[in-house]
Amino acid sequence: MADSSAPTRVMMAVNESSLKGYPHPSISCRTAFDWTLSKLVRSNPSGFHFLFLHVQVPDEDGFDDMDSIYASPADFHQMKQRDKIRGLHLLEYFVNQCHQLGIKCEAWIRHGDPKEVICSEVKRVQPDLLVVGSRGLGPFQRVFVGTVSEFCVKHAECPVITIKRKATEAPQDPIDD
Amino acid sequence: MADSSAPTRVMMAVNESSLKGYPHPSISCRTAFDWTLSKLVRSNPSGFHFLFLHVQVPDEDGFDDMDSIYASPADFHQMKQRDKIRGLHLLEYFVNQCHQLGIKCEAWIRHGDPKEVICSEVKRVQPDLLVVGSRGLGPFQRVFVGTVSEFCVKHAECPVITIKRKATEAPQDPIDD
Repeated sequence: MADSSAPTRVMMAVNESSLKGYPHPSISCRTAFDWTLSKLVRSNPSGFHFLFLHVQVPDEDGFDDMDSIYASPADFHQMKQRDKIRGLHLLEYFVNQCHQLGIKCEAWIRHGDPKEVICSEVKRVQPDLLVVGSRGLGPFQRVFVGTVSEFCVKHAECPVITIKRKATEAPQDPIDD
Repeated sequence: MADSSAPTRVMMAVNESSLKGYPHPSISCRTAFDWTLSKLVRSNPSGFHFLFLHVQVPDEDGFDDMDSIYASPADFHQMKQRDKIRGLHLLEYFVNQCHQLGIKCEAWIRHGDPKEVICSEVKRVQPDLLVVGSRGLGPFQRVFVGTVSEFCVKHAECPVITIKRKATEAPQDPIDD
């Protein structure tokens, strides 16, 4: 079983934590990434190629700014610039990790509804595997927030792995991530 | 990234094809197995340990025998023996493949409702990953047959990977497998 074939292309959907503070990866996407490294990549970094997709939700990103005053087009431009910088910081975290481990990777940002964008990017990029983190919400919580992972398992045109956040890592409000 | 850690324990739920003929693995579980070998195990057979679970459905197994006549307890015993032999043949296929590739594995049979048994075996055995094949049915077909994979993604207490059967490999009736 020589590993001469093309590396396994792993697409990961990554998002920011909803907890306050400086932008950092959500608990569930960090859990999914660490799990993929330790359980799938293991000692074979050249066998895998990571593709990090960050989907920014236009409305949601502005939500923190309820108190902001938009007085000119420049204010909106500034807001968009700030969102872009946050997204780049997020991707930088994952690209740095891969670089340190000798795993090839690419990362990019898209805008829209995460579940729709992830599935259309799968169609376009055709990865071997899509990894999605999940908050592991119960049925009651799920009704209100929907879950990206469930949608992707049904609709993404490639094998999908769902990795639930550990119960011990859930924040006070399980809808946070 | 030395691979000194314990191998990744991959549980696979395997089932027989519903197509007529000598017992052989279903299209979807064969697809899932081949995919796991080529995309995850790759050139690292010592990094993985396979756990093959075959769940036999008591009622369903007897369904082919509508025309049979059961005249004594021995007839039932014989039927059960035959089911057991079919299950062992199925597991033998996967164990042989692993043996040839130098991948450690274990295989066993359980009885009951596949989705419930798979999740309870995950709880008991605690694999790192559960691999389930899926027929990739559309929403209309799914209503009538339910899907084991959807249930496992929601309820199994470990990361779950769902691998859909290729469209080109679907038999005439997509509910067959």
